[in-house]
Amino acid sequence: MKTLKIPEATIIRLSVYSRYLAQVDRQGVVTISSGQIAAGTGVSPAQVRKDLAYFGEFGTRGVGYSVKDLYWHLIKILGLNTIWSVVIIGAGNLGTALTMYGGFRERGFKVVGVFDNAPDKIGSYLNGLEIYPMERMKEVIDRDKAQIAIIAVPAEAAQAVADELAETEIKAILNFAPRVLNIPSHIELRNVDLSVNLEILTFNLASRRSLKTGK
Amino acid sequence: MKTLKIPEATIIRLSVYSRYLAQVDRQGVVTISSGQIAAGTGVSPAQVRKDLAYFGEFGTRGVGYSVKDLYWHLIKILGLNTIWSVVIIGAGNLGTALTMYGGFRERGFKVVGVFDNAPDKIGSYLNGLEIYPMERMKEVIDRDKAQIAIIAVPAEAAQAVADELAETEIKAILNFAPRVLNIPSHIELRNVDLSVNLEILTFNLASRRSLKTGK
Repeated sequence: MKTLKIPEATIIRLSVYSRYLAQVDRQGVVTISSGQIAAGTGVSPAQVRKDLAYFGEFGTRGVGYSVKDLYWHLIKILGLNTIWSVVIIGAGNLGTALTMYGGFRERGFKVVGVFDNAPDKIGSYLNGLEIYPMERMKEVIDRDKAQIAIIAVPAEAAQAVADELAETEIKAILNFAPRVLNIPSHIELRNVDLSVNLEILTFNLASRRSLKTGK
Repeated sequence: MKTLKIPEATIIRLSVYSRYLAQVDRQGVVTISSGQIAAGTGVSPAQVRKDLAYFGEFGTRGVGYSVKDLYWHLIKILGLNTIWSVVIIGAGNLGTALTMYGGFRERGFKVVGVFDNAPDKIGSYLNGLEIYPMERMKEVIDRDKAQIAIIAVPAEAAQAVADELAETEIKAILNFAPRVLNIPSHIELRNVDLSVNLEILTFNLASRRSLKTGK
C-alpha cells in the first residue's frame, strides 16, 4: 500500500462505499461497476475510481469489482478488520446515545466501558454495561486493552478527562465536547462538533440564496 | 463573493476558525494573524490563508485580521447571520441529546419542534419543548417556518420520515439514520454517520501501524 497523503474526504467516502457494498452483498450482488457504486452512494463515477485508485487496482476492466473482495479491501484499509475496544466518558444524553448506538458494533467497535461522575448514574446499566465512576477509567482501559476513548462530557470537564486519558494506553480520542483539547502527539485526536454538520447545510442554503447559480 | 466550488473541508475549517475567533474575542483579543489562528486551531498557516482567500481579502498586511470583522465575515459566509428554525424527528437517545445540545443555539439554530410516535414520549418535555406526535410535523414546520429537519429515527423508519418531510417546506435535512435516503433534489441532504468519525481514527491508527512513517 502506498502512502500518499489521503484526503479525509476520501476516507469518509471509502467508509460510505464499504457500507453500500455490505448492503448490495446482502442483496446477493456479486460484481459491481464504479458507475453502480457511484449511483448507489451519490458520488460521481470519476470520484469513485479516483478514491479507489489511491489504494491500487481492484477491479477487472469490463467486469467491474467483486463486491466481497472490494468490501474486504476497504474494511482492511479503514482498519476495521479487527475489533476496537472503546470507552465512553460521560453518560449524559450524548454518551448514552453513543453507548446504545448500534452502528458502532456493526463496524467492529465494541464499547467496553462507560464512565460518569454523577452518583445517580454510577452503578446503573446502559446496554448491559454498568456505568463506572471516573476513577475506574484507567483500570478498565488497561483490563480491556481499550484503544479508543470517546469524550462526551461537558466542555468545561473535557480537558481534565483528556489529561487523565493521556496517562493511559489509549491511542485515539474522539472528542464531542466543544473545546480545543491539548493532547500528547502520540494520541490521535478527532473533534466532532454536531453543529458543523448543520453549518455545511446552511452554507449551501446561504450560497444558493445569494447566488442562484446551478450548483 | 465569488462562486468557486468550495471544498467541504474548507467549510468545516471556516466553522472551526469562527469558533476560535469567538473564543479569543471573549478574551479581549482585537487583531490576530493567520499564524495565530493556525496555532489555535491546529491547521497550517498556509491552509488558513488559502481557506480565507476563497472569500476575498480580509486582513491587513503586517497587522493581521480584526477578530470581530473576520468573525462576522465567517458567520455570514456560513449562513449563520440569521436564526435557523430546526425540527428534530425522533426523541430517542440521539434525538434527546440533539434537542438538549447547547451548541446548536450558540450557533443560531433554534429547535422549534421534537416529534416521536411512541405514546409514552408524546406529551413529555425536552428542554421546555413538548414532544409532539409525528402527525403534527407538517403543521409545526409551517407554523414556525422551520427550514431544517434532523432525522434521528431508526434506520427502517427514516425513508418514511423523509417522504413526509418532502411534502413540507423544509429546505435541508440532516440525517443521522444509517440509511441512504431518496430526497427531492431541491432539499439539501447531509448524512451523518457517527461511526465514520471513529473510522477516520482507525484508518490513521492502521496506517501508522502498517507504515511507521512519521506523519
